[in-house]
Amino acid sequence: MSLAVVGSIAFDAVKTPFGERERMLGGSAVHFSLAASFFCDVHVVGPVGEDFGDEEYGVLRERGVNTDGIERIEGGKTFFWAGHYEYDLNQAHTDDTQLNVFGDFEPKLSDDVKSVENLFLANIHPQLQMKVRRQCKDARLAGLDSMNLWIDTERDSLVEAISNVDLIFMNDAEVRMLTQEPNLVRAARKVMQMGPGVVVAKQGEYGAALFYGDRFFALPAYPLETVKDPTGAGDSFAGGFLGYLAGHDGATAAQDPMVLRRAMTYGSVLASYNVEEFGTERVARLTRGEIDERFSEFRRMTIFDEPS
Amino acid sequence: MSLAVVGSIAFDAVKTPFGERERMLGGSAVHFSLAASFFCDVHVVGPVGEDFGDEEYGVLRERGVNTDGIERIEGGKTFFWAGHYEYDLNQAHTDDTQLNVFGDFEPKLSDDVKSVENLFLANIHPQLQMKVRRQCKDARLAGLDSMNLWIDTERDSLVEAISNVDLIFMNDAEVRMLTQEPNLVRAARKVMQMGPGVVVAKQGEYGAALFYGDRFFALPAYPLETVKDPTGAGDSFAGGFLGYLAGHDGATAAQDPMVLRRAMTYGSVLASYNVEEFGTERVARLTRGEIDERFSEFRRMTIFDEPS
Repeated sequence: MSLAVVGSIAFDAVKTPFGERERMLGGSAVHFSLAASFFCDVHVVGPVGEDFGDEEYGVLRERGVNTDGIERIEGGKTFFWAGHYEYDLNQAHTDDTQLNVFGDFEPKLSDDVKSVENLFLANIHPQLQMKVRRQCKDARLAGLDSMNLWIDTERDSLVEAISNVDLIFMNDAEVRMLTQEPNLVRAARKVMQMGPGVVVAKQGEYGAALFYGDRFFALPAYPLETVKDPTGAGDSFAGGFLGYLAGHDGATAAQDPMVLRRAMTYGSVLASYNVEEFGTERVARLTRGEIDERFSEFRRMTIFDEPS
Repeated sequence: MSLAVVGSIAFDAVKTPFGERERMLGGSAVHFSLAASFFCDVHVVGPVGEDFGDEEYGVLRERGVNTDGIERIEGGKTFFWAGHYEYDLNQAHTDDTQLNVFGDFEPKLSDDVKSVENLFLANIHPQLQMKVRRQCKDARLAGLDSMNLWIDTERDSLVEAISNVDLIFMNDAEVRMLTQEPNLVRAARKVMQMGPGVVVAKQGEYGAALFYGDRFFALPAYPLETVKDPTGAGDSFAGGFLGYLAGHDGATAAQDPMVLRRAMTYGSVLASYNVEEFGTERVARLTRGEIDERFSEFRRMTIFDEPS
């Protein structure tokens, strides 16, 4: 099954205690689609400027991502984000944001994209998310990500967008903020009352928690001695998660608790590789074998009731 | 096998968004020994004042805890702590601390206590921890807890105490602070280089991470819709953990990865019950059946690779 993602395609400048890059391929739709590409056909949708060239297209195409939905704006410049991290790598500090072509982005979807069965609305303006959701009528499984900015400034639009998807991926602090409920279990239930059957609360270095129906699953993050650059981890996580579902019957798979849990584990695997190097560097050369190996390590580090 | 714990025995005044108690039984040694009492024989050691009466002794004895090591100081008053929590229940705010009899505490251990095979040094001054450790020569398994105060003010003593135990239980932020290493995996390894073979990093609502040798295990916290009072959760966690080990051959058990992991799961079970009500209220009336039930729930909420 195929999966489309609509979101930002960017150049990022990132500085962490472990190094820096002045200009590298980034953006939520890029990280998402590279991660998902290991499991299903992926269409990436978003605007870029004239500065977006063969090298950048090449990274996506190398992983088999369909780039027909990338709209290249003549005379435009690609979205640019500059940020840094201190030793607390959970906290990104934004130094510069230049929306550029993203400022006037109006998603115009091809028939190929409109007919996908699985859709991810990366973290963009909730009204744009709704415009895309309405066009993708055939998508039986849709997920979205969002952030504190939209909770603050566009809460009603965001709630409408949330009510039209099946899964949401948000940081746990944002789930609490959206619902104004300090307890995460209650907060997740309040989000489910808005519509989605599945709530995934991302918890950074602590992993993630999954709520569906009245059930709960949690998985720690993979323990890494060196996290070089956390940028894109959440999108790689969502890409591995939804990509795995899309590769296993999509909406049907999302009804199966164990498939859903494995999807979250694959998401965690992809996020863990994402942060090992800068930007897309590690995931771009990742192999399926490496993914499965780390999946097995996740099993080994979470079991407690097997015979010794 | 028997297990001794040396630490504070207290009266606590606690206020949370879900209620308050003006004066209730508390203290690290109390929470620890009640939790451990489900798995092994427990001796509790610590000083109390004349205000510590039959009711308080009764709570401990009801659970079979040996209270002979409680030193009752004539004319003295029991350690008193007052604190409150906001909606972020991870953060305790101290409003008052009255050391009282705890201020002059010099552990005088009975022969019974000196000969225990398993020992827990709750969060007290590291030099007191060392005095106890030296007296308990037969303890083949010893663990300790500590806090930011001692890292700041008594680092050398604390490192000496740590070098004389087998397991440490600390909050993850404190493990980082102690080692001045922001990455938890590296920080845990640095602690192991000080001596202990096992490092348990407590992570509050996110659960806990276990490091032993070059291996890693992590467990989420039990998802609760209502946390009424987190006071004592860390001590109940350590009590369930070390109590389970003491009930399963102590030092030998601590060499078995699956026993160690199950110990952490029982610790998490005890911590989860601890926080459901104020002070010792919930654990005091807990049953072994309820413990095993929640242990099974931990299994259900962490597996991801069984057939659906």
